[in-house]
Amino acid sequence: MTKSEPPILLTPGPLTTSRPTREAMLRDWGSRDEDFIAMNARIRRRLVALAGGEGTHVCVPVQGSGTFAVEATIGTLLPRDGKALVLINGAYGTRITRMCDIMGRAYVTLEMPEDEPPVPEDVARVLNADTGITHVIAVHCETTSGILNPIRELAQTVAAHDRALIIDSMSAFGALPFSLADSPADAIVASANKCLEGVPGMSFAIIREQALEQAEGNAPVLCFDLHDQWRAMEANGQWRFTPPTHVIAALDAALAQHEAEGGIAGREARYRRNCTVLIEGMTEMGFQPYLSANLQAPIIITFLTPSDPNFVFDRFYNLLRDRGIVIYPGKLTQANSFRMGCIGALDESHMRRALDAVRAVMGEMEVSSGAPEATL
Amino acid sequence: MTKSEPPILLTPGPLTTSRPTREAMLRDWGSRDEDFIAMNARIRRRLVALAGGEGTHVCVPVQGSGTFAVEATIGTLLPRDGKALVLINGAYGTRITRMCDIMGRAYVTLEMPEDEPPVPEDVARVLNADTGITHVIAVHCETTSGILNPIRELAQTVAAHDRALIIDSMSAFGALPFSLADSPADAIVASANKCLEGVPGMSFAIIREQALEQAEGNAPVLCFDLHDQWRAMEANGQWRFTPPTHVIAALDAALAQHEAEGGIAGREARYRRNCTVLIEGMTEMGFQPYLSANLQAPIIITFLTPSDPNFVFDRFYNLLRDRGIVIYPGKLTQANSFRMGCIGALDESHMRRALDAVRAVMGEMEVSSGAPEATL
Repeated sequence: MTKSEPPILLTPGPLTTSRPTREAMLRDWGSRDEDFIAMNARIRRRLVALAGGEGTHVCVPVQGSGTFAVEATIGTLLPRDGKALVLINGAYGTRITRMCDIMGRAYVTLEMPEDEPPVPEDVARVLNADTGITHVIAVHCETTSGILNPIRELAQTVAAHDRALIIDSMSAFGALPFSLADSPADAIVASANKCLEGVPGMSFAIIREQALEQAEGNAPVLCFDLHDQWRAMEANGQWRFTPPTHVIAALDAALAQHEAEGGIAGREARYRRNCTVLIEGMTEMGFQPYLSANLQAPIIITFLTPSDPNFVFDRFYNLLRDRGIVIYPGKLTQANSFRMGCIGALDESHMRRALDAVRAVMGEMEVSSGAPEATL
Repeated sequence: MTKSEPPILLTPGPLTTSRPTREAMLRDWGSRDEDFIAMNARIRRRLVALAGGEGTHVCVPVQGSGTFAVEATIGTLLPRDGKALVLINGAYGTRITRMCDIMGRAYVTLEMPEDEPPVPEDVARVLNADTGITHVIAVHCETTSGILNPIRELAQTVAAHDRALIIDSMSAFGALPFSLADSPADAIVASANKCLEGVPGMSFAIIREQALEQAEGNAPVLCFDLHDQWRAMEANGQWRFTPPTHVIAALDAALAQHEAEGGIAGREARYRRNCTVLIEGMTEMGFQPYLSANLQAPIIITFLTPSDPNFVFDRFYNLLRDRGIVIYPGKLTQANSFRMGCIGALDESHMRRALDAVRAVMGEMEVSSGAPEATL
């Protein structure tokens, strides 16, 4: 692949999308026109169904990235006199506390190391001790490390203690088994451009209708008032403010492909195969995944930085980029690392192409092994 | 045109875009990759230049619709102890007061009828009388009616009284003469998908750098903290949160076409011709523009609803839609009306096609004249 061709993206997003998904953006839509309104309704129905929320939850879309929908959901559902317990084992959990600081919402945290999931019993203990906590906020798959948090057990614990749960499921939704039927939550938030394989520009929350009904007047800004957006959309099927019509059309196409692949199970199977091929190939070259296998979600893999002094990440990145493979820097606070995603419209042939490129770049950099310091 | 073909959009946006603009969305971009960072920098430079803000102002982009950027700009620049004077002659001015209510920012209003622009002398009087006012917020072209407000005179008045100005230039930016050099303002806000003819999904503010420097900690939510986004983008050229990569690539292509058309002057000339053809043709059929010609911006035209009892707007809309022409309902509080845009990747041949469709639909509905009650 020459440098002028688009690379394949082994990142947590934006991802490589399919040609049919991108081609869905080749036409213009009137945002108040019946064809667009029907498309929007179809997307909302499909997303509620994917979350297992039919009959209890509704989908409220938000312009912007996943962070926009997370902040809008917290701002809308957490009352100004509420109090959150934020479960943290990575940068996205930490970012939620920053949102609460700025919005002036009270919170406490339960923080774990980046390679350990939150423990439901610990959550129970905090909820028992602090009856002022109204909401728990949890991250499903922490993209910082790629760790899978035990969202079902956490959801059942929070429900047993009669508190509301908000789940940031950004990099998991649509590819990992999940149902609101056995993972009770007031909201699960995700984005078009992760495992659903749409393009970036819109995100959404699947929110319990009764929680939304009680959320009037909570929001800190007009644009993030999901109660108001929900009421408006129920009334006329329309977004309050200009929607990203082309991005929405791409998501509509992407959801049809998701269904054709066998829904969540089909997508999960492909990503698991991608993940296995990538980890096996990288391990053969000496690289070491940061997480133990039982904690690794088949979404994004963190590898520890090799100890070989010839390994310089920026050079590694650029040489891979020259071969048409885009990877991602690390985000851990606890170890030097880099990340490779295994999601997007990619299969194991792409993973093998990426492994070939890594092998070639290692040779060019004269790095003899990918082994990190700790394992030498 | 059959119903299955995409219609042409005579609306205030989303608009009809050009094929090259949409085709720019056919590739994926890594959001932290150097190609994307270079594209983003090019767009920001071009937008600052279009506003005449080189050397004094910077461009801060925002995911989402224009309303997102307006609220983010106000939330970032208007301090929590500041006070705004909001100039209102339509729904977009009114929406700004709603934002201030929700964000808890103090404001007063100067309200005019929907067919009258704010008067600089009135603004001066309010600013002299209320020294607590720190910021004035004005709408450049009120899309409610299509009225052009005297933004240069207003800007000079506000500057003479040593207050800061924030301009919502959503439906004017890029098509009407404007320069920060003679219209001093702390910020001018617009969107990719109006006169720049990009697709919806991103908006931006051109902000005076010194004002932005002083704006740390003002923002009501993390996502709308333009000070933080600016600092981050100055440091690494990147968006803080996943950018709408395809939408940005479309804007990049659209800006190249804008330049090739002769910049603001070229675009204005085409829109003025569109506007003239549309108004002349509609007037021939008896329709009456709501605004007098000297107040009419060549952006969107409000027509009064015909008094003929056979004229039913929903039917008129649907029959035009069947002929591939999408128009817009009215938004006036003071009169029954509908709107037809003359912006987007359209020329006078499209306006004539729209006029032919209106003529045919009038016949089908057995409406003898477009004349409104007041003129009969």
